[in-house]
Parts: sequence; C-alpha cells; structure tokens
Amino acid sequence: MSAVAPLLVAGHWRAARESVETFRAVDPTTGRAIGPEFPRNGAADLEEAIAAAAEAAPILAAAEPERIAAFLEAYAAALEADADALVELAHAETALPAPTRLRGNELPRTCNQLRQAARAAREYAWTQPVIDTAGGLRSHFAPLGKPVLVFGPNNFPFAFNAVAGGDFAAAIAARNPVVAKAHPSHPATSRRLAEHAQRAAVEAGLPPATVQLLYDFHPTLGLAAAGDTRLGAIAFTGSRAGGLALKQAADRAGVPFYGELSSLNPVFLLPGALAERGEALAEEFATSCLLGSGQFCTNPGLVVVPAGDAGDAFVAATQARFAAAAPAVLLSRAVLSSLERAVDVLRKAGATLLCGGAAGTDGICYAPTLFTVAADDFLRAPHALQTEAFGPSSLLVRVADSAQRQAVAQALEGQLTGAIYRAADGSDDAHWRSLAAVLRPRVGRLIADKMPTGVLVSPAQQHGGPYPAATHPGVTAVGLPASIHRFAALQAFDNVPDALLPTDLRDRNPGGLLRRIDGRWTTDDVGVSP
Amino acid sequence: MSAVAPLLVAGHWRAARESVETFRAVDPTTGRAIGPEFPRNGAADLEEAIAAAAEAAPILAAAEPERIAAFLEAYAAALEADADALVELAHAETALPAPTRLRGNELPRTCNQLRQAARAAREYAWTQPVIDTAGGLRSHFAPLGKPVLVFGPNNFPFAFNAVAGGDFAAAIAARNPVVAKAHPSHPATSRRLAEHAQRAAVEAGLPPATVQLLYDFHPTLGLAAAGDTRLGAIAFTGSRAGGLALKQAADRAGVPFYGELSSLNPVFLLPGALAERGEALAEEFATSCLLGSGQFCTNPGLVVVPAGDAGDAFVAATQARFAAAAPAVLLSRAVLSSLERAVDVLRKAGATLLCGGAAGTDGICYAPTLFTVAADDFLRAPHALQTEAFGPSSLLVRVADSAQRQAVAQALEGQLTGAIYRAADGSDDAHWRSLAAVLRPRVGRLIADKMPTGVLVSPAQQHGGPYPAATHPGVTAVGLPASIHRFAALQAFDNVPDALLPTDLRDRNPGGLLRRIDGRWTTDDVGVSP
Repeated sequence: MSAVAPLLVAGHWRAARESVETFRAVDPTTGRAIGPEFPRNGAADLEEAIAAAAEAAPILAAAEPERIAAFLEAYAAALEADADALVELAHAETALPAPTRLRGNELPRTCNQLRQAARAAREYAWTQPVIDTAGGLRSHFAPLGKPVLVFGPNNFPFAFNAVAGGDFAAAIAARNPVVAKAHPSHPATSRRLAEHAQRAAVEAGLPPATVQLLYDFHPTLGLAAAGDTRLGAIAFTGSRAGGLALKQAADRAGVPFYGELSSLNPVFLLPGALAERGEALAEEFATSCLLGSGQFCTNPGLVVVPAGDAGDAFVAATQARFAAAAPAVLLSRAVLSSLERAVDVLRKAGATLLCGGAAGTDGICYAPTLFTVAADDFLRAPHALQTEAFGPSSLLVRVADSAQRQAVAQALEGQLTGAIYRAADGSDDAHWRSLAAVLRPRVGRLIADKMPTGVLVSPAQQHGGPYPAATHPGVTAVGLPASIHRFAALQAFDNVPDALLPTDLRDRNPGGLLRRIDGRWTTDDVGVSP
Repeated sequence: MSAVAPLLVAGHWRAARESVETFRAVDPTTGRAIGPEFPRNGAADLEEAIAAAAEAAPILAAAEPERIAAFLEAYAAALEADADALVELAHAETALPAPTRLRGNELPRTCNQLRQAARAAREYAWTQPVIDTAGGLRSHFAPLGKPVLVFGPNNFPFAFNAVAGGDFAAAIAARNPVVAKAHPSHPATSRRLAEHAQRAAVEAGLPPATVQLLYDFHPTLGLAAAGDTRLGAIAFTGSRAGGLALKQAADRAGVPFYGELSSLNPVFLLPGALAERGEALAEEFATSCLLGSGQFCTNPGLVVVPAGDAGDAFVAATQARFAAAAPAVLLSRAVLSSLERAVDVLRKAGATLLCGGAAGTDGICYAPTLFTVAADDFLRAPHALQTEAFGPSSLLVRVADSAQRQAVAQALEGQLTGAIYRAADGSDDAHWRSLAAVLRPRVGRLIADKMPTGVLVSPAQQHGGPYPAATHPGVTAVGLPASIHRFAALQAFDNVPDALLPTDLRDRNPGGLLRRIDGRWTTDDVGVSP
C-alpha cells in the first residue's frame, strides 16, 4: 500500500495506522480522479495527533516569539520558492484560475498573512499588556497552552488551508500547535504545503508536533475530536450544517469553537443609485457574483432591488449577463450537490427562476443562476429564502418602497457582510441612515457602494459577524493581530515578582511595546513618570 | 394581592401578569422569612421584558455615550446617597457584615465599577478603533444591538447584582439594555437598586426598558430565555450545574454565554515558604478561607501542603483555627444544602474530615470544615475531589515530593486563580518555575505569596479562566474596559464615507481617542503625518 500518501503525525510522515478507506482528488474540469490515493484516517491516528500536539503545546507556549516568527517567515519564503508546483497542484485539484487567482492573488495573500503573523508574534502585537503598579496586578493575552484543531474549507486551497491559511497563522502566532484537517478536495496541495511547514518549523527549533496534517476523517470522528478537552480551540470554515454539528460537540465539552459558516451577503440598491448607474451596477454585480464560480463566503447571494422601471432594467441587464455566461466549473461534486439542493429549496419556497438552475455537462459545472422574488413573498418564507446557494447563484428581492426594504433587512439572519449602494450626489443618504441602522447589527462588515466579494487582509478587517454567519460577533477570522485573539487566553499575574513574569509584563520594556500602565498607554519602562 | 412586590418591566413597576408563586427573603441568622412577598414570574412577564428590551436595544445603541455615562454616574451617586437603607436591606437578607463588608467594601466597589464603566463609555475606552486608510476599511467594537440577560449570584448583593454589578455595568457601557434576573436570596435589595437604576436611566433620557428586573423564575423558563435569539448575550455568575444547563440552551441558539461557574482556587505551599513562615501561612489561609463564611468564587478550596513536619505543623495550626471558629452563617438554605452535598461527595471520595462537617443549630450556619487527603488518593479520584464545597470548607492535599506536587497540578481542572507561596529568599524559585508552567494554562490569575480571595477591580484583572471555571478563557468578568468586550460586536466599515461613519471612526478625532491608523497608534486625526 505504499502508493497511499502519508499523514504527518507527531513529526513523522507515515502511513495511516488504520486507514478506513482511501480517496483521490478530482479534476473538476473533467470530473476524473487525479493524483495518488490519500488515507481517510481512523481514530488511532487522530488520537496520536492530538496527544502529540497536547505534549508539544507547553513547549511551544514557552518558545521565544522570535522562533515562531522565524518559522512563519521561512515557511512563507518556501511557498514562494515552490510557487510553480503549488499552483499547478492547486489548479488541478480546484480548477481555480492559475495565473489570476492562485498565482497572482491567493498565494501572495497567503505568504503575506504568514508574514503578518510573524510580525505580530515578534512584536507581541496581540498580547495587549496591562499593568497596574499600585494593585500589583499585570495581565496580557497568552498562548492557550493547548492545541488548535483547524478545519479548512474547500474554496481557498492556500489562503484558508488548514495548514497554511489565516487560522493556521493566527494559531501559530499565539504559540499553539495546529492539528490541521485539510479539505479532501485538495489533498495533494495540502500535503505539499505541510511538507514546507513541517520543515520550516523543525528548522526553527520548534517541536516536531507543531504542525500535523490529516486529510480527512469520518464525520463521527470529527465530532469526537471536537469534544476532546485536550484541545484549546477549534477553527472551522465551511458549511453551516457541518459547522453547527461540530460546534455542538465542542460547546458540550467547553472547547471554544470559532466557525465561519455561511452568509448571503445582502446587497441593497437604493433608488438614487439605481437611477444614476443601473447598468453599471448590473455589470458590477454579475462580475462579483460569478467570480471564482461564486464560491466565496462573501459572494452576493441576495440583492434587494426597488420595484419599477429602473429596477426592472437592472434585473434585465443582470439576467442577460448571467444567461450569456458559460456554465461555471465548481470545486467538487459535493459543491454541485449542495447547490442543487439549495436551488430546489429556493424554488419550493417561492422564488422564480430567471435563468440557469441546472448543471452543465462538461466536467463538474453549473449554469449561472438568477432567482427573483417579491418582498411580500420573501417575508412569508424568510428562513427558506435565506438558504445559501454556494456557487454562481443569487436571489433578487423586489421591494415596493422603503418600508418593504426595511422589513427585508429586519428579516435577515446574521451575515458576514451587507452592502448598500447609494447615489453619488448624497440624495440617498437619508435612506442609507435608516437602512444602515437596521443592517449594522446584522452584519460584520458594512459596505458602501462596493460588492462584498473581496476580503482585504487588514488590521481593520472583520471577516466574521453575528450568528449564524459566524459563531461569535466579537472576533474575526481575517486581519491580524485581531484574529489571534481567538487562540489566546487572558492571564493575570498577581503580586508576582519581576523575575518570574513573562517578558512583555516586566518592568523593563526594551522592545518598546505599547503597554497600558496605570491607565496610560506608553512604551516606557514601568516607573518612568509621564 | 397588593402586598406582592412589583416587577420592573418595559419601564413600569407592575404586578406579575401570572405569578407562578411567591417567595420571601430569609434572614440567615434566624432562618425566618422577612420582608414582603416577591413574585416568581411566568412566561408572559419574561416575554414582555425581552420584547421591550429588544425594542430598546437599537435606540440605546444609537444613544450618545455621554448619556450612558450620565446614567451610570447618577446611579452611583444615588446608591451612595441611599447607602444606609441599602446596607440595612442587604444585611438583613444575606447576613454579610454591614459595616466592614457591605458598607465599607462592597457598596463603594459597586459605585466605583459603575463610575469606571461611565468613564469607559464616555472615553470610548472599549471600542478600539482601527483605521486602514489605503484599504478604505475601518473597524471598532460596537453595541450588540440586542439585550443582555444577566443572572446575578447569591454572594454579592451589590457588586455582582444583576441590576448593579460588574456584568450590568459592562453591558450598559456597551449600550445594551439589561434584563436582570436578580438572585432570589436578596429580592428587596435588588428591588431598591433597580428603583435607583430605572430613575437614573430615564432621567438621562434613555429608553424605559434600558433596565428591567425579574426576581426569579422557574429553571425551565430560564432555559427557554437562554435560547431566545433576540438576546445578544447572557452573563451568568453562579453554580456550575445551573450555569452549564443555561450555557447548553444558549449555545444551541447561538447566543454568546459568559458564565463564571465555580473554582477551587488551589494554593500551593512550597517547602521553603512553609519552613520560613508556616504559622503565619496557617493564619493567612484560615482568615482567607473563613472570610464571608467562605462564600467567595475565589475562596481557597484546595491547599497543596508538603508532607513532613513543617507540613504537619501547618495542618495542625490550621485545624486549631478552624475548630476554634464559630459556625459560619450562610447566605441561604440552598447554600447549606449544596455544602452538605459537597461535603458528602468529598467524604465518599476518600477525603478525611479533620474538623467541622456539620451544620450549626443557630439560624442557617455550618461549622468551619477542613478535609485532608494524600496526593495518591487525590490522584485516584481527581474529579470527585475537585467538587466545590461553596462555604467555609477546604481540602488539604499532602504531597510527598515535587513530582507529586506537579502531578496534582496536572490533574487540576480550569480555575479562576492559582496561588503559589515561595520562600522570601528565592530558594523556592526553581520549584516556582516548574509549578507555574503547569498551573499557568489552568488558571486565570496566577498569584504569588497571597491568598486568592480579594478580587481587585483593575484594568489588569482577569476574573475568569479556563473551562469549567469560566466559559471562555479570553474574557474577564471584572476589570474595565476588558469586561465590556463580552457585550460588544466587532464591526467593520468598508468604503463608507466619513459623514456616515460612527464618531470614533471619522477622520477628525476631537476627543483625542487612541486609534490604530495604518499600523501606528495615535491620537491624531486621519491624514496627519507621523
């Protein structure tokens, strides 16, 4: 069975102890299996990985931040040096465009995230030291001292990969080991990433179990893992159903679960904007919705369009673009089935199909799909009509007036983003204010005059939002150093002498960290008068 | 039935719509009922309170922070002006010492917390504005836009009261309405606090449903409330069993649940410290453990004592003090029953009773209780022997050597605090380092040479810790502004023009807030060169 690819467990690339079955990647453009067999591992491998990570956790927690930074930077450099091979593998397994998306955008973003995480680790940018000299009390954010289990999604083979993406970088920056559960739709890509990660970690002098890789395991094994109290946290990006099942298991065990689950990313077109530039908006929306075959967490899946001529023209222009576009290649058969199910739910819930709604014949693909529904009908079945159709599909909700627009906004579940287009001359701004007041608590990122698809890696980012888009409204999965806080514990030191304190809480502050000392933010040593 | 006290719902003090039954407070010193009847409310009252709070939430979220600050400051001033009556009520209902504890300590602390929350609200100390000018992205922490349900505990009638304590102050500072579920052991105190709160809120121009008060409801109603998706968050301080049941209901509904549940607050005596000052440590420990009849979340419930003569002397000195102390008056019959059950569990799990272990006869009280167990036996039943005996009770674990001490530390569940006593001459410091490495990830606050009982209200505080002491390792229930983050949402604004941004994210920064602009912390306006 030497043809079956190895797992990375406890510092070793080795065969699965009890391979439940094997699987192969699929080229979505042909629907044919490609590359080697990969193991779907059993309980023994998972147990060994969690045990090894739990053992590595205190060692990693005590490691010099400089070592963490060196690891992450060497890893980023290795990915750049190996870009050709990585992009080729990822393209074969996902059909995402190699030059524009994978090479031009996603791999650089991934390396950038790793380097930002390195800098955050080196500069203690996430520890937020607070010192109360009179009270003898000092606190900061610190490693969990336990491993983080990361479940990667299907749609970003690099930037959200469990062994290279944002969750990985954030967990490592906080000096926690990562047990990566890669997505089975791109196993060869994940394996090659993990080879680089493992090499860089060991060369930086970190414990061998700092990074481990499993390709896939049965959902029941996932639930058992999620409830394992040896874990410090779980990060999950993927479907709502899968995420919520894992969340329930983690919640019961008291393991913090950070899921980024699903979102429709509603877009509201205000009347002035539509009158001013309806045709341009149709172009902007169609481009955004069909980019990457619509397989983004931030894809615009619901557009609120005023009734009347300008709205009708927008719908017609959009429909023409969708109808003219070729069937979109999807990431996997699982994505296709899930899309077919969602389209069925939307139809049955009363949405009218304008175009698309069917799979293509060439490889794994689906026709660009547009639904429409009147606001009254939407408000009669708001839950079913908020079913996420992950892929090149969107629902246009037609509103007769601003009261209906507000009512649709009120009916929205928690979302990653919400966008409002307004007239450039400010004539929509009163509508903006009343609509934004309703939308703001329902979305993580509120957007003006722009589609939601792009997610900037920025310290000001919020890629998260109210439940059920994400599992906690106060954290983000993208944007450093904020994303690190999911994997950190707040720790106070009471009456502890200077020599026994961690570096960033000592009196002397040679690194010039920004600290809050007795209510004042300062880079001074303790004891320096303002 | 006009003798039954009213609820505060939707801005009105009114009779319960469907009082399931009524109850009265009990004077713990006599065991006799005192004061008026209070309603245990039904579903209709709870529904009306949550609906009113949900309606008030967006109004409060949009309120000027100055109004919030004015409310909290006026409330604190009203409590000070009414201190005599409040302390009398609280003393009658809890038997906590009036001059030293309630008047001298807890009420000032409560007013101090309210004023710190006012300052945090006024100064935007919790919003953490981050601005990325090149990316057009700005983010900050913002109100949840939904109500917070606060469950208050029995042991702090003021400082943790659901309608006056730390959770209340933090939720209001973040501009969220509070539905307060007071503890039924001090209903008259809670009612009087709520009268002041309601008056101050309305006078500050805030919505009438900013503060609402329910005294008690059936546990099944609590579970239904915890799973109500109209809530933005739940804060709970109390027993582990009750808290975990509510947590499960909240988790299933995706409502963030912040519980501070239970803790043994282990204290480790290192050999040098014991040799140096064993008698003084016995005095310090006994005083701490019996303070407030041991009814603190941070009571030292487990002490790890070396075997040998110095350890034996410590045990004897402690036992003498416990045996000589009068039975301690408890807060309620519920505390007594729970203590009796815990003592029974500890006995059956193999702990040897040194003294106490029985209720007193005068009112509701219990004899100071000391258990001992050998480390080997502790390690054979670590779960049962970590049963919290809330009250004047502690367990001494005798360790033969440092390996056993490390093993006991390894076996500890998540705790609010952990303390290590070391020799003043530094001779224990090697032991400190190895023990602290094990203890650190298991506790929220690591303490040197001090008992854990006192909880300083400080920005550097961590009153929380790993599960199951608290429900999330990254947050604190005490210490502003950090405690506010439990009740805040991270919100980004993407491409939103200046005039439509919230105050703290605009280009101009007239209040001189500290903001992170393009990676630099500054109080400047946007656009000012460094």
